[in-house]
Amino acid sequence: MLNDTDTQAVPGADWGADQGQVFLIGAGPGDPELLTLKALRMMKEADVVVHDRLVSQDILDLIPAHVRRIDVGKKPNHHPVPQIEINALLVRLATGGAKVARLKGGDPMVFGRGSEEAAVLRAAGIQVSFAPGITAAQGISAATGVPLTHRGLATGVRFVTGHCQANRPLDLDWAGLANPDTTLVVYMGQANMQQIAGELLAHGLPGDHPVLVVVNGTRPNETRLVTHLAALETKRAQIPVPGPVLFIIGRVVSLLDSSGTLDADAILQAPELQQVLHG
Amino acid sequence: MLNDTDTQAVPGADWGADQGQVFLIGAGPGDPELLTLKALRMMKEADVVVHDRLVSQDILDLIPAHVRRIDVGKKPNHHPVPQIEINALLVRLATGGAKVARLKGGDPMVFGRGSEEAAVLRAAGIQVSFAPGITAAQGISAATGVPLTHRGLATGVRFVTGHCQANRPLDLDWAGLANPDTTLVVYMGQANMQQIAGELLAHGLPGDHPVLVVVNGTRPNETRLVTHLAALETKRAQIPVPGPVLFIIGRVVSLLDSSGTLDADAILQAPELQQVLHG
Repeated sequence: MLNDTDTQAVPGADWGADQGQVFLIGAGPGDPELLTLKALRMMKEADVVVHDRLVSQDILDLIPAHVRRIDVGKKPNHHPVPQIEINALLVRLATGGAKVARLKGGDPMVFGRGSEEAAVLRAAGIQVSFAPGITAAQGISAATGVPLTHRGLATGVRFVTGHCQANRPLDLDWAGLANPDTTLVVYMGQANMQQIAGELLAHGLPGDHPVLVVVNGTRPNETRLVTHLAALETKRAQIPVPGPVLFIIGRVVSLLDSSGTLDADAILQAPELQQVLHG
Repeated sequence: MLNDTDTQAVPGADWGADQGQVFLIGAGPGDPELLTLKALRMMKEADVVVHDRLVSQDILDLIPAHVRRIDVGKKPNHHPVPQIEINALLVRLATGGAKVARLKGGDPMVFGRGSEEAAVLRAAGIQVSFAPGITAAQGISAATGVPLTHRGLATGVRFVTGHCQANRPLDLDWAGLANPDTTLVVYMGQANMQQIAGELLAHGLPGDHPVLVVVNGTRPNETRLVTHLAALETKRAQIPVPGPVLFIIGRVVSLLDSSGTLDADAILQAPELQQVLHG
């Protein structure tokens, strides 16, 4: 069939012009300026946008008026649409010939289930492409000035999710996570913050190990709280809900003073920086 | 002095209009479409751009023609400008009143020394702001379809650098890194790939643990190599140099077949996805 002359109707194309496709797009943490150029282009090329609850209104406002929008973040009864129904919706839309922009908060490849949706779509014969997004840890790092790595304070960074399936305990590699040389970022950890702090302390991190809690990072209603592991549970009441919550746990947070403003003196005191500055 | 009427020359501003400032900007992995809107705005607002070797030509081409450019990635003798000289240059330019765009490959807060440069600038009284960038791991994840996390394959992701100071051994938490449930991303690891594979094997990862090596990720000359830990060292000759090299080590790479194309069937076989699909 490769030589069928009918296929010449779309010369040079592997994919028919009337065939739908899906763009799996990271919308970033909330600030619309943190969209990539690719994400914005795909949003504007789409016939329909299927978006999550975590995609901010400022970003939804960038979608052209003629583009259909479907919110799968919640149903009338306030429960999110189950993943299997989202998968079926995407397949149905693309099979019907639509260019579908599947817009997700953060990065679809970092706790975003982008690869699960891609697998289902590809199995259904639908073309998929990705636009990465700034993940919350990066957006908050840039907004606060707290780095994710910093010579002398953190040789690497690790992202885990503090969320677990209903009725299942949070099962993480606590011994490995309790590493003072690595910045630990916990996504979706608010429900399990007592367990997270307790396990990290039990596995050897000191009680004064710094923690930055940010709710609604990079959005106009962003809230920051600087604390330490031993005090984390007592701060629960100060964390506004609802809203996405991120924990940055590590010595890099010591670069902030308690008000959440960067303390340049603290950075300058790091021995490695002294070496850079003074040879 | 706060009541000095001279300060009223800039009503409402905390920062004088004639005072320079520095934008610390992540340029992402190379594809200019992966710039954020914020990064592009800052590049266009700047009087001068100070950029690294890793910032791609396609991105430099987006800088307006009237904006001065300074390449600190190399000197005439092909050695990079020392960090202390870059710091001094940024301070000098901003103190002279320039809006300086400091453009770095990737994300300035992930192995980018952005926080070091910010500390120096703030200590000199210079205003600093950040634009995060898509880091290489994210750009390559989106380009290849290999996720950084995926239910049933990776509960989290970890970024480390495989680069070390001259004459110092690579000192990483090998026991913690040899975790089959976490995707391990190694930046700048090509010089130490034999040690990295050897230590991970010695600390318990299996010889067939998958590895994706990507050189010049997201650029027109991108090269991909799919292998496994035990064979990594033998593949050295297949890795083109020069060019930024990223290793993605983990079960998520098993979602690729050996040609570097996504294998949807492999994703669909993951038990957790079967559960999503079939309840």
